[in-house]
Amino acid sequence: MVIRVGIVGVTGYTGEALIDILLRHPNAVIMNLFSRVEKPCAVSDIWPKFKNRTRLMCEKIDIKKMSQDCDVVFLSLPHTVSMDIVPFLLKNGKTVIDLSADYRLKNVKTYESFYKVKHKDAGNVGKAVYGLSELYRNKIKDAKLVANPGCYPTAAILGISPLVALNLIDPEHVIIDAKSGTTGAGKKASEDFLASEVNEDFRAYKVNVHQHIPEINQELSRLGGEKINVTFVPHVLPVNRGILETVYLKKLKGSVKDTAAVIKLYKKFYKNEPFIRIREEGVFPRLKDVVGTNFCDIGLRVSGDTVIAVAVIDNLLKGAAGQAVQNMNIIFRLPEYTALL
Amino acid sequence: MVIRVGIVGVTGYTGEALIDILLRHPNAVIMNLFSRVEKPCAVSDIWPKFKNRTRLMCEKIDIKKMSQDCDVVFLSLPHTVSMDIVPFLLKNGKTVIDLSADYRLKNVKTYESFYKVKHKDAGNVGKAVYGLSELYRNKIKDAKLVANPGCYPTAAILGISPLVALNLIDPEHVIIDAKSGTTGAGKKASEDFLASEVNEDFRAYKVNVHQHIPEINQELSRLGGEKINVTFVPHVLPVNRGILETVYLKKLKGSVKDTAAVIKLYKKFYKNEPFIRIREEGVFPRLKDVVGTNFCDIGLRVSGDTVIAVAVIDNLLKGAAGQAVQNMNIIFRLPEYTALL
Amino acid sequence: MVIRVGIVGVTGYTGEALIDILLRHPNAVIMNLFSRVEKPCAVSDIWPKFKNRTRLMCEKIDIKKMSQDCDVVFLSLPHTVSMDIVPFLLKNGKTVIDLSADYRLKNVKTYESFYKVKHKDAGNVGKAVYGLSELYRNKIKDAKLVANPGCYPTAAILGISPLVALNLIDPEHVIIDAKSGTTGAGKKASEDFLASEVNEDFRAYKVNVHQHIPEINQELSRLGGEKINVTFVPHVLPVNRGILETVYLKKLKGSVKDTAAVIKLYKKFYKNEPFIRIREEGVFPRLKDVVGTNFCDIGLRVSGDTVIAVAVIDNLLKGAAGQAVQNMNIIFRLPEYTALL
Amino acid sequence: MVIRVGIVGVTGYTGEALIDILLRHPNAVIMNLFSRVEKPCAVSDIWPKFKNRTRLMCEKIDIKKMSQDCDVVFLSLPHTVSMDIVPFLLKNGKTVIDLSADYRLKNVKTYESFYKVKHKDAGNVGKAVYGLSELYRNKIKDAKLVANPGCYPTAAILGISPLVALNLIDPEHVIIDAKSGTTGAGKKASEDFLASEVNEDFRAYKVNVHQHIPEINQELSRLGGEKINVTFVPHVLPVNRGILETVYLKKLKGSVKDTAAVIKLYKKFYKNEPFIRIREEGVFPRLKDVVGTNFCDIGLRVSGDTVIAVAVIDNLLKGAAGQAVQNMNIIFRLPEYTALL
Repeated sequence: MVIRVGIVGVTGYTGEALIDILLRHPNAVIMNLFSRVEKPCAVSDIWPKFKNRTRLMCEKIDIKKMSQDCDVVFLSLPHTVSMDIVPFLLKNGKTVIDLSADYRLKNVKTYESFYKVKHKDAGNVGKAVYGLSELYRNKIKDAKLVANPGCYPTAAILGISPLVALNLIDPEHVIIDAKSGTTGAGKKASEDFLASEVNEDFRAYKVNVHQHIPEINQELSRLGGEKINVTFVPHVLPVNRGILETVYLKKLKGSVKDTAAVIKLYKKFYKNEPFIRIREEGVFPRLKDVVGTNFCDIGLRVSGDTVIAVAVIDNLLKGAAGQAVQNMNIIFRLPEYTALL
Repeated sequence: MVIRVGIVGVTGYTGEALIDILLRHPNAVIMNLFSRVEKPCAVSDIWPKFKNRTRLMCEKIDIKKMSQDCDVVFLSLPHTVSMDIVPFLLKNGKTVIDLSADYRLKNVKTYESFYKVKHKDAGNVGKAVYGLSELYRNKIKDAKLVANPGCYPTAAILGISPLVALNLIDPEHVIIDAKSGTTGAGKKASEDFLASEVNEDFRAYKVNVHQHIPEINQELSRLGGEKINVTFVPHVLPVNRGILETVYLKKLKGSVKDTAAVIKLYKKFYKNEPFIRIREEGVFPRLKDVVGTNFCDIGLRVSGDTVIAVAVIDNLLKGAAGQAVQNMNIIFRLPEYTALL
Repeated sequence: MVIRVGIVGVTGYTGEALIDILLRHPNAVIMNLFSRVEKPCAVSDIWPKFKNRTRLMCEKIDIKKMSQDCDVVFLSLPHTVSMDIVPFLLKNGKTVIDLSADYRLKNVKTYESFYKVKHKDAGNVGKAVYGLSELYRNKIKDAKLVANPGCYPTAAILGISPLVALNLIDPEHVIIDAKSGTTGAGKKASEDFLASEVNEDFRAYKVNVHQHIPEINQELSRLGGEKINVTFVPHVLPVNRGILETVYLKKLKGSVKDTAAVIKLYKKFYKNEPFIRIREEGVFPRLKDVVGTNFCDIGLRVSGDTVIAVAVIDNLLKGAAGQAVQNMNIIFRLPEYTALL
Repeated sequence: MVIRVGIVGVTGYTGEALIDILLRHPNAVIMNLFSRVEKPCAVSDIWPKFKNRTRLMCEKIDIKKMSQDCDVVFLSLPHTVSMDIVPFLLKNGKTVIDLSADYRLKNVKTYESFYKVKHKDAGNVGKAVYGLSELYRNKIKDAKLVANPGCYPTAAILGISPLVALNLIDPEHVIIDAKSGTTGAGKKASEDFLASEVNEDFRAYKVNVHQHIPEINQELSRLGGEKINVTFVPHVLPVNRGILETVYLKKLKGSVKDTAAVIKLYKKFYKNEPFIRIREEGVFPRLKDVVGTNFCDIGLRVSGDTVIAVAVIDNLLKGAAGQAVQNMNIIFRLPEYTALL
């Protein structure tokens, strides 16, 4: 099978990661690369690492062209730009995997309040399938529009889901202490993310007001069938790639007995999942275990009535481009790990 | 006033920091440096940064010599080594500031269980004053033996104390997510702390079983007058210096109203403290604000009934050598910030 | 075609990189992993990143077993250990790719003087082919023993060869200023390579006495047909992976005219090489262009009679495991880039 | 003695370093801080690390005000901005220490060609004293305008001067391989200096065309009494602070015999210099030895007719703010190390 692929947005780290994966993909052919460039240029001029690997050109965004050549279009664009393009692509029958936040939140008002912009394509929000592969595999199979999850939500939801799905924890007490590498902030010039500002530093930011909070709440609430409102504090790590989230939960009386029990429960919940790895008792995952891969690794400990979960992912892979390709594999009935191991 | 000072243990990062501060101290003269060296050597051969600043020699540990020349002796030794030396120094009337854990825990059994060693000087534990300057200033004034606090406990206790002292939070719900630079692990060769293992990595360790937990519990429980048992997860940051702790507390009904109220409360509690700085609403401290200084900066936010506190210190200064000198200043009735600004 | 592969030495970074590449290799099957382990263990216990990718076990080194199952054996061992194993493997008809320094230097006395050990298998040194794929491709095709080049020599020789081969530079004036990431120093516990010592630091070491100097001299002298004695100063970079070498050469009168001419010359010399990329005038390669790949990128500038060349490689790939697999591909007549793009 | 000081430009790293030093200076009082701010603000709002250390305000640049209150004015401004202010300050009898490049190059045409701007105050260039304290101490004593040296030139000139001053090396063969931390690039938002671009990377830039080259050439040529034209390649290090330069020189026949001889020569040349430290044979300095200090450390080795010198400084201290205060100390006849040890 050959899948004809287009990518819109290739100058950012997510776009780079998409190209890297898709060049290795045995069933995908990249037909077009679009970006905000003035005139066509070799993608290897933007990313010299691709020299000798591809002669692909990157062109100015051309909405008609992208809907002619491709079966599937990946949108690796800033929030609020995707929704300018999606309606046209859907109308032309394309499958769209959108890596921005534009179609993740079912409540358009919440989107507008957190992203501080009016939604221009509210009509398609309902059609979008939330692309967390492990939870929505069956819906993704037939999706025409996948809203690929945010990086923080991916680790958070995967790290908490088994206990929420079985209603084993106190829904009023979900604390997520998150730490992310700097590629999560993108490639735009910024004083805050200068090397001189980030190195030998560590800081919290958007303390409990981050725009990924409603996304996590939406999915956990849906899964648990009750309102869950997490406490979420993200921090900037002086590393390029990787997210580690330390989650503190309060188990309900009589729910899970001890660490062994909660590990067993997670292993069962994620049975047969190719990209979820549960650590044994006493062992916790670290960034190095997953950076450069599409895995999400989870370690667990129960102390008294507190459950501590540590979840790690590569923010650019399982947290973005890797999961996007995983979703493409699901849609095209390919082995889910194709090009991802 | 001239204080004659001896330092035992100078090859580690804490010893280096002590020398650095004391060389700048207008009232202190370093008389002796002792360490596990084979034969006397210039301290600038151990730390080339001290060349042209001092001609001090470092000698083999000589317990008699150190009690002759000095008014105060700083012990910057591994845990369990201090208690071999302290009894002799106290007997000879010296003032001792011990930077190890040997005299911090009032319950000797707890010490023995967490540090996995038999205590050899239990008799002096009761005489030791816990050297958190802000909480024990009056006792430190007359102390002959100061048990200088651990780095994690310093940030944790300072970050939580105002709410605990006034019994405004749920004692069963104190969560501390701590992140420390690598100098906290010392200078001993170790595979786990190789640059190749630490850089581009981030990991949790000793998840809720770290030896600093009983120290934090002891002090918070004493302060609050009720048993407090914290949840504590430390992580290794790829930076040299600095600790940031994100603390999650649950305020009791009707205690503090909002962020402004809790900030006001902290400012009042730490009024006149030269080294505690409370951030304004919406602003949180970062490592860079305190690394290289003796300050502890704290930022706060109230969300629903959750209080989030972010506390940062330099682990080698306020978390070790800086606080040790602050305590010396207190003992000798010097301005507390002498040599520390 | 299926090549049965064994790897000896898997606990180091080079061993990890070999496994990673060979698991992706469509024509290779890893039959055995050997290492200094006490009892057999899953390789994913040593390197958790391989969980869910392989169930391979790592066994105690068993010289007989490794010669039964494998067509080719990769030795990723410390210097001086390889020569204990190589004779037996050769006697049993195995193809050996040795990543240590044991068979690189044709002059055994030089080896013994720089590596400070007696050579135990001098008889096989003459049979070893120096595995710099670009220069020795034809000999590698029929080699039974490949001495895979050192990391520094790979970048140095590739960066200088075109000018030396054509005798266009002064042989008495070859200056190599080399900078390497910390994985080049291996994974053994060491105070010098602690994160606290490496981060925010940069240092020269083994200034013009490094053991890779005779290797570079041997190859450049052979290529130029005249004695070349380089000046070589290596430095430790606070990054995990990558080598950048800045080379200063003096062109002979009337040799190459200008930057454009020298670039043209390099492009011609490396025509058809899949892994050598020459940058255009005014552009120089950086670590990020090659880390994670098997490429060697080279940038050039002529200023007066000085030629400046900047060569970059990933020390664990083109500088070790990648080039080793490239050599295996050559021996087994596979496309040279198999599993390496 | 009390020196009244003004600083223009405080939002950059050099301005921050100046404030930090001058707050510790026993003879200096900072009277004014000026910067491109819209309205007056506390300097501790710009740099939270100064909270509790000073209540100084930072004001909009006011050329009249700054010439009323101060004896000496430090200009820590971007190149080309200083020359707008200097004439007025000199006319009003102020002593000016300019940390920009505007008055360093005696040849105005060279300045204009390298900095790509017309010089607006060529008349004062001749009056400026080049502020390399070790070489120009006597002239600095009576200077009204000090052109504080660039960071790269400081390390380069100090590392090479003894051999050039005594005409012991080939003037056509001076190669400087320089590596600098990121604060050298300033605090302006820039994609090239994002943490994600700098970390795990290393790159050469402005290869032999850097604007500091004419400054190094000017000073070495003057010192040697013959035209010296260096080869200079700077690189970006993933550290915040520090410059290390590896210098390759060719000694003339019969000049210095060996490493011991060259070390002796350097020690004699820099006899009594408080901030120059020459390493013993076999030992080379590293960034950590000097970062946070005003020292320049130099290590040396002679191999054949090549002399290798490694010089290290803190780019913000000896390479900028530290040397500026050293020059102020010289002008005001204070001990040169005041506030700098």
